Amino acid sequence: MITPPSQDARTAARDRLAALAIPTGALGRLGELAVWWSSVRGEATPAPPSHVRAVVFAGDHGVAAHGVSAYPSAVTGAMVRAFASGVAGTSVLARQHDVHLRVLDLGVDGDFPDLDPAIGAYKIRRGTEPFHLADAMTLDEARRAVEAGAAIAAEEIAAGADLLIGGDMGIGDTTTAAVLTAAVLGLPAVEVVGRGTGIDDEGLRVKTEVIDTALRRAQDRTADPIDLLSAIGSPDIAAQAGFISAAAQAGVPVLLDGAIATAAALVAERLTPGVAPWLAAGHRSTEGAQWHALKDLGLEPLLDLGMRLGEGSGAVTAVPLVRSAALLLSDMALLSEIL
Amino acid sequence: MITPPSQDARTAARDRLAALAIPTGALGRLGELAVWWSSVRGEATPAPPSHVRAVVFAGDHGVAAHGVSAYPSAVTGAMVRAFASGVAGTSVLARQHDVHLRVLDLGVDGDFPDLDPAIGAYKIRRGTEPFHLADAMTLDEARRAVEAGAAIAAEEIAAGADLLIGGDMGIGDTTTAAVLTAAVLGLPAVEVVGRGTGIDDEGLRVKTEVIDTALRRAQDRTADPIDLLSAIGSPDIAAQAGFISAAAQAGVPVLLDGAIATAAALVAERLTPGVAPWLAAGHRSTEGAQWHALKDLGLEPLLDLGMRLGEGSGAVTAVPLVRSAALLLSDMALLSEIL
Repeated sequence: MITPPSQDARTAARDRLAALAIPTGALGRLGELAVWWSSVRGEATPAPPSHVRAVVFAGDHGVAAHGVSAYPSAVTGAMVRAFASGVAGTSVLARQHDVHLRVLDLGVDGDFPDLDPAIGAYKIRRGTEPFHLADAMTLDEARRAVEAGAAIAAEEIAAGADLLIGGDMGIGDTTTAAVLTAAVLGLPAVEVVGRGTGIDDEGLRVKTEVIDTALRRAQDRTADPIDLLSAIGSPDIAAQAGFISAAAQAGVPVLLDGAIATAAALVAERLTPGVAPWLAAGHRSTEGAQWHALKDLGLEPLLDLGMRLGEGSGAVTAVPLVRSAALLLSDMALLSEIL
Repeated sequence: MITPPSQDARTAARDRLAALAIPTGALGRLGELAVWWSSVRGEATPAPPSHVRAVVFAGDHGVAAHGVSAYPSAVTGAMVRAFASGVAGTSVLARQHDVHLRVLDLGVDGDFPDLDPAIGAYKIRRGTEPFHLADAMTLDEARRAVEAGAAIAAEEIAAGADLLIGGDMGIGDTTTAAVLTAAVLGLPAVEVVGRGTGIDDEGLRVKTEVIDTALRRAQDRTADPIDLLSAIGSPDIAAQAGFISAAAQAGVPVLLDGAIATAAALVAERLTPGVAPWLAAGHRSTEGAQWHALKDLGLEPLLDLGMRLGEGSGAVTAVPLVRSAALLLSDMALLSEIL
């Protein structure tokens, strides 16, 4: 069981929020966010996050070759290169918000001999098996992917992170996230399927069938999260689950991105119960799976901008809101100070 | 008629957005916002806003003494002092986002001999008459308030503003904004009334009655916006209407705050048709009046955080989103560059 965030800090933050020179509740979600930030930092008025570190977990998904995505798997590798060159969407947003960003290849179906070898330091395998037909990866690979995520979180925390973000890059990843979410929560395929990068109606029908078949394959594998990841997961999502779990164990908060990060958080909560209070949700994904996963985790997203870029972009876009919340709580006048 | 934003820049921005290395529409609202920013700046890939200037228009509202607010008018003056000391909510947010901020007393029922006299340079009168019983101010005062707003906008533009924000501070201001919105749009009181700073059910009933009575007084005064402001406006909101109108005439975009700013924009559109394309909406207010006014202006808010602090706080909180939109459009890779 994970140690919960500080109840004393939460109470002190709530008291200060109630004493600010504003009408009750006038900060809306920023007030709740400020109280959460105080609880996870263990102080009444903590400094805003100044060492935000984001990791994009890249990997290919075997199902991508089975008509579930609008793009071919080759795009995954091209996007890893775009991250390495700093021209991906999340690269741009991370520079804007002073967020440290690195991309790691956990399971891309290709290699990057011309890039910094650190990108592949935690690579588990090249792509996954199409999980509606066979196990996505071995039990050992699933375990190593989760451990890799924990090791990555430890590196980020050692580098001084006060807020962590995980993103995912991989053609087919919304299919994997949807299957994992449905398997963990016992939902049918139609409740979790979404258009991902933008498939048409026929693609949506195929994707729903693939998810449905995978769910039937996995229905007896939900008791052990590692077994479930082996059956229908992927190294990138397994690593993000290990990353989130390790962050919560170390008492470092995580700002979730969209459907894939939230599916990883759902798995992390099963790996190590008590993760959820360490999390905030950065943005509302357009994928139905995220709606269900957030509900289960008790989280409400900050932004709802119709973004479906993935790669941690929604969470990085929400970083200034966490900073606003912290600053409002610490720097605004109390009613007693102005009257 | 106001010159519309650049159609050429809008087309060039749309073309670039479609060519980015992302799935179609994956930036969601940030993509639309980027196209808007390009159109109002007249360039395909303009720099993000770096000289954002916000003005808080302060004034008292005679109706506040008639049971429509949870707070007494004395709070208006206290908040002007909080702004002068930099400890109001918007002061904190403006520092975070490098937004220049000043507060101006247009109609506070009190004076500030100990503060910088510039705060009162555009003062029109002390408070308004309770507009369900009498005209809020004279025709001449309404005209001078609108002109003051235009002069203030000219000062901000001369200081280099590339994006303007108007906020309002004044106990009773949501009642005035609701009446103005209802009068301009021909709506009944129940459609525009809200809880403002947090009135109870009995307060809401009284506020609805006051709005209804004021609307009956104003029903023959809607043809001329100046006459309408004289009947049921206030110097602070009239000035913000003039400020928005002058900004649009000068081709400088405005990021709207909540219910009061949006009511001012509605009046500005009647003063000088063609204002709306120069506007973006920063956040969703909890006041029903804003919903109707935004719909009429064809605007959709960026944030929906349940904030009801006023003072421009919602717009300032949304500033990083405008910057994100501009940066994503200019700095992300094109698909042709990565494949």
